[in-house]
Amino acid sequence: MLAEKLRKIYDAAGAEALFVEQDFLRKYLTGFYSTDGFVLLTAENCTFFADPRYFEAAEKALNGSGIIVKEGAYAQAEAALSAFGKIGVPFPFTDLARAATLQAAGFELCDCMPALKAAMEIKTTAEIEKIARACEIAEDAFLALLPQIKEGVTENAVAALLEYEMRRFGASGTSFETIVAFGANGSVPHHETGATKLQFGDAVLIDFGCKHEGYCSDCTRTFLFGDDKKHAEFKRIYADVLKAHELVFERAAAGMTGREIDGIARGYLREKGLDGYFTHSLGHGIGLQIHEFPVLAPRGGEPIVNGMVFSDEPGVYLAGELGIRIEDSCYMDGGKVKSFMHKTDKNLIIL
Amino acid sequence: MLAEKLRKIYDAAGAEALFVEQDFLRKYLTGFYSTDGFVLLTAENCTFFADPRYFEAAEKALNGSGIIVKEGAYAQAEAALSAFGKIGVPFPFTDLARAATLQAAGFELCDCMPALKAAMEIKTTAEIEKIARACEIAEDAFLALLPQIKEGVTENAVAALLEYEMRRFGASGTSFETIVAFGANGSVPHHETGATKLQFGDAVLIDFGCKHEGYCSDCTRTFLFGDDKKHAEFKRIYADVLKAHELVFERAAAGMTGREIDGIARGYLREKGLDGYFTHSLGHGIGLQIHEFPVLAPRGGEPIVNGMVFSDEPGVYLAGELGIRIEDSCYMDGGKVKSFMHKTDKNLIIL
Repeated sequence: MLAEKLRKIYDAAGAEALFVEQDFLRKYLTGFYSTDGFVLLTAENCTFFADPRYFEAAEKALNGSGIIVKEGAYAQAEAALSAFGKIGVPFPFTDLARAATLQAAGFELCDCMPALKAAMEIKTTAEIEKIARACEIAEDAFLALLPQIKEGVTENAVAALLEYEMRRFGASGTSFETIVAFGANGSVPHHETGATKLQFGDAVLIDFGCKHEGYCSDCTRTFLFGDDKKHAEFKRIYADVLKAHELVFERAAAGMTGREIDGIARGYLREKGLDGYFTHSLGHGIGLQIHEFPVLAPRGGEPIVNGMVFSDEPGVYLAGELGIRIEDSCYMDGGKVKSFMHKTDKNLIIL
Repeated sequence: MLAEKLRKIYDAAGAEALFVEQDFLRKYLTGFYSTDGFVLLTAENCTFFADPRYFEAAEKALNGSGIIVKEGAYAQAEAALSAFGKIGVPFPFTDLARAATLQAAGFELCDCMPALKAAMEIKTTAEIEKIARACEIAEDAFLALLPQIKEGVTENAVAALLEYEMRRFGASGTSFETIVAFGANGSVPHHETGATKLQFGDAVLIDFGCKHEGYCSDCTRTFLFGDDKKHAEFKRIYADVLKAHELVFERAAAGMTGREIDGIARGYLREKGLDGYFTHSLGHGIGLQIHEFPVLAPRGGEPIVNGMVFSDEPGVYLAGELGIRIEDSCYMDGGKVKSFMHKTDKNLIIL
C-alpha cells in the first residue's frame, strides 16, 4: 500500500512505473538520503534499491515506513522494471546516456517531473519545520560570527568561521559554497571568496546557508565594518534595498505570480532609479535543493501559493564600487509571505 | 585560434560545434568557474556566455586567455549555435529536457563526452599540482585536528573542526560531506555523521577531502581513540587493509586495467578471508569532480596510464562491529602508482 503522498505522485505521472535515481528525489520519495540508489514506484509499492554501502542503514531507517528496501544496483532495478512498458523518469534530471540505456531495453519514457514538482513545491508542516530549523541554525551561526570579525581577517577565514559555527549549531553541512565579499568585491553578485583582507570602513556581504535533515536555508546580510564616513551613498541604497525586501512581506499575497511578486521589489527599485542595477531574480524556491521551484522573477508565470518556500533577495550592484543584497528564506502561509529569519537585524549593522 | 587542448577535444568530438553547460566541464574548457553559463566550442573559437552575475568577473579572469566572453544566457547561446547542425553535448550530463529543446530547434545531437573524458582523465602538470595542494591541505588539517579530539565530542563536532581546519589551510570548501564514524558506526561505509559521542576505546573513521582551485582531494583514515585492549581483531584486520592498500603502490604498473589494479588489493584480502567484507570499488578517478574516471573495480576494463589520478581505498566492514578503510589520493607517474599523501602516518594511530 502506497502512502497518500506517493499515490498522488504515481497517479499524476501517468506512467506504469516511476524510476528515480537522483539523490534529492530519492530522499523526497523515501525519506532516506544516499549518494546512490534507485527508487521504483508502482501502483502497489515503493521499492528502494540500495547498494551494499547503504543497504544496512536503509533497512534500519526505513523499517516500518512502508518502503521496501532491496539490495541491488542498476541491474536489479532494471530487472524489476521489466513488467512495465511506460516508465516515468524526471526529464530535467535524467541524462541522455541513461535514457539511451532504458530505451535500448525497450522502455517508453515519459516525464514524471511535473508530478514530482507539484508535490514537492507545496511543503508539509514537517518540511517547513526542517527548513525553519536550517534557517535558525544559519542565524545563530551568523550572530556567533559577528564578534569574531576583526580587521585584517581574510574572506576565506570569515567563511571558514561561519561554516564552523553552522556545523557547531547542528548543520550537516552548507547548502552552497559560502560567499564572503569585502568592499567593492560585493559588486560581483557571485564573488569567489578569496584572500582579500578586511579593512576599516569596508562593506561586508555574506551569502550563506546550511542543511538540516536534508533541507536548505539561504540568507544574505550586508553590513559595514566600521564607518569611515564615506558611506552616504551606501546607506541610501541600503535603505532602498531593505525597503524593496520588506515590501514583499507587506504587499505579496497568495495567488500572485512569481512575476508579480518580483515586480513589487523591482518596481520600488525602479522608482529609485536602481532597477538597472538589480541584475538577478528576486527569489528562487528552496527545499531539498538550494535552487528549486517556484521562480520569483520576470519570467515567473506560476502562482505562488500557501506552502511554497522561496527566497526574497533584492540586490543592487554598482560595478567596482559596491554591492548590497538582503535575503531571507521565506514561505507563503495564510495568504501572506512570512520570513523564517527572526534573530538577525536587517537594519544596517555597523560593527 | 583554439588552444591545443581545445583543438584536440573539438577534433575528437566529430561535431560541428560543442555546447557545454555543466559547471565542471565549463571550468575545464575555460578555466573559469561559475554556477551557470554556456560554452560554445567551434573549429575557430571558444566562447563563454555569462549572465550578468558572472560577466564582469569572467571578462577580467579570461582576458588574454583566448576565450571570448559574451554576456548572455541560454537564448544567446542557442542563437550562436544556429550556424551549425550537428551539436556535441555530453550525454551523461545532458538532461532530457535540454535535449528536447535542442532537438525541437532542429539540432542533431551527438555525444562529446568521450572526447572530453579522453582529455580530462590525463591530468596536466598544472592540474597535478592543484590536486597535490588539495591533498596537502587535507593532510595539514587532519594533523591539526588530531590533538583537538577529546572524549565526549560528537561526530558532527569533529567534522566541523576538520572542515574549519581545511578552510583555514586554504581550501575553498569540502569536496564532499565529511564522514566521521565512531565505533561500530564505521561498519556503514557511507555512515551519516551524527550526534554519537566519542568514548574511550572507540575506533574513529574519517573520510574527508577539500577543493583547491576547483580540484578535489579524497582521504580516509581509521584510528583508535585510546586502546581498551579489546582490539586484537581490529588490529589484525587493520594490518591486512593497510597491506592491501600498500600492495597497490608496490605492484600496480601503468597499462594495467582498473580491474587488475583492484585485483591486487582484493586478491590480498581474499587470501586473508576478508574479500567478502570489501563491499565497494578499490578506487575512483579524482579531478574537478570527486568521482570521476577512471574506475578501479572489477568492472574497470580501461588501462590506467600515466597522468591519471584516482583513489586507493580498500576497506573491510563487519556489520554492527567495525569498519576500517585506508585511502590516499594517488596518481600514475613514470609507470608506477604514487601517493599525494606524505604527511599523515598510515600505521595505526592510537590517540
